Amino acid sequence: MNNFEDKTPQEMRQLFRTEEVISPTSGLCDNYLQANLVILPEKLTFDFYNFCQINPKPCPLLEMTNIGSFEPKKMAKGADLRTDLPRYRIFRKGKLVEEVTNIKQYWQDDFVAFLIGCSFSFEAAMIENKLPVRHIEEGKNVPMYITDIPCQTAGYFSGNLVVSMRPLTTIQTIKAIEITSKFTKAHGSPIHFGDPQKIGIPDINNPDFGDAISIKNDEIPVFWACGVTPQLAIKNSKVELAITHAPGYMFITDIKAN
Amino acid sequence: MNNFEDKTPQEMRQLFRTEEVISPTSGLCDNYLQANLVILPEKLTFDFYNFCQINPKPCPLLEMTNIGSFEPKKMAKGADLRTDLPRYRIFRKGKLVEEVTNIKQYWQDDFVAFLIGCSFSFEAAMIENKLPVRHIEEGKNVPMYITDIPCQTAGYFSGNLVVSMRPLTTIQTIKAIEITSKFTKAHGSPIHFGDPQKIGIPDINNPDFGDAISIKNDEIPVFWACGVTPQLAIKNSKVELAITHAPGYMFITDIKAN
Repeated sequence: MNNFEDKTPQEMRQLFRTEEVISPTSGLCDNYLQANLVILPEKLTFDFYNFCQINPKPCPLLEMTNIGSFEPKKMAKGADLRTDLPRYRIFRKGKLVEEVTNIKQYWQDDFVAFLIGCSFSFEAAMIENKLPVRHIEEGKNVPMYITDIPCQTAGYFSGNLVVSMRPLTTIQTIKAIEITSKFTKAHGSPIHFGDPQKIGIPDINNPDFGDAISIKNDEIPVFWACGVTPQLAIKNSKVELAITHAPGYMFITDIKAN
Repeated sequence: MNNFEDKTPQEMRQLFRTEEVISPTSGLCDNYLQANLVILPEKLTFDFYNFCQINPKPCPLLEMTNIGSFEPKKMAKGADLRTDLPRYRIFRKGKLVEEVTNIKQYWQDDFVAFLIGCSFSFEAAMIENKLPVRHIEEGKNVPMYITDIPCQTAGYFSGNLVVSMRPLTTIQTIKAIEITSKFTKAHGSPIHFGDPQKIGIPDINNPDFGDAISIKNDEIPVFWACGVTPQLAIKNSKVELAITHAPGYMFITDIKAN
């Protein structure tokens, strides 16, 4: 899939910053926490912070920047959140209006950036334990689905849970639950396995975000809460302006995943 | 089921010693490790110790007594393994010949006793986390099944894995895996969930040991490695004389489960 296996988080962020590389970040910088990005005007931060607090499984909050600051001092000192992700999404009144590779021209002095844990963080641990991570094997973006499970509402922000899916055998599912339950800053253990319809997914081969991947005969789909959940809440909120990462194109932090 | 909820391990052992009480120990002395018992002549202990070492999931070894000693000094100082379990099984040449409530008349100076972790130890934690433990709810012994999964062989000792079963919903299964994976001295996480036939169990309503229990429509059977596994290995070994607890009638230790 790529030749970046020995790159540090700083080096990868530099490649994204110069736009030499624009790719999904799954499988990059093993063992480092990856993060979902949400940028909002300051007046909405109270509600959004609350939304994270009461929905910790999809929204494990890693860091909130100071007002107007694009440097996540705790997760990656010196990084620039306007440029260091490979791809961003611009939402106006809840509508996705554009995908861009940097957001310098959109930055506002009243912006606050939120970094939220991401399931890519535990994939290195899965691979170390000889568990398959199908979308990495197939060079694809992880498949993500909107479920019929409602999140807790906080002011402007409400919506259903979004999940990512990895197919595993029964034995592998048990092992994966053991492993990922330790990654509390990266969605932790799965929220469901088996029948997708039980959580409101009509067609496993037609994800709402990311790519469809193959599921073998002896495998079941296993579902983890996903950091794309807040993007759905932002759409529903119809806020004037919000910026997020593009699904699968995460911020790579300098912090080890566990 | 019983009125022993506030009894200490010492008090329960005393009730078993005097044979005032003869009952399965599931649900007794919450939070204390319970143990499977295996007693063998000294000449077989090397092989049996090895069997435990290479099959840690069914046989997490808690303690091995000195030759001729019936006191498990580490797990329950002052206890008497000849009397302090509610029910024992006597095996001669691998054949179950008798079930008794104490083994004073069988004790030999060359005996060594093994205490092996038991899944009852994590049931209190399951209940604390609002997970159902059906056989306790129904006042029954936990259902146990002989699978088609072979254990690693050690000298005289070989045989298939025995499992215990608790029915849970999908969400509860995930939670149960998280919780029980921490109980490494009590079989840890499950070895299988879902289709019983995949591990060689032809009829879930017909357990090899213990009682059949009800499985609700939205539940799947979840299987944990079981400390009855060594009893099967003892049967197969056809050793001259061996003594074990009766399935479900465990030794209650003074050690907290986690």
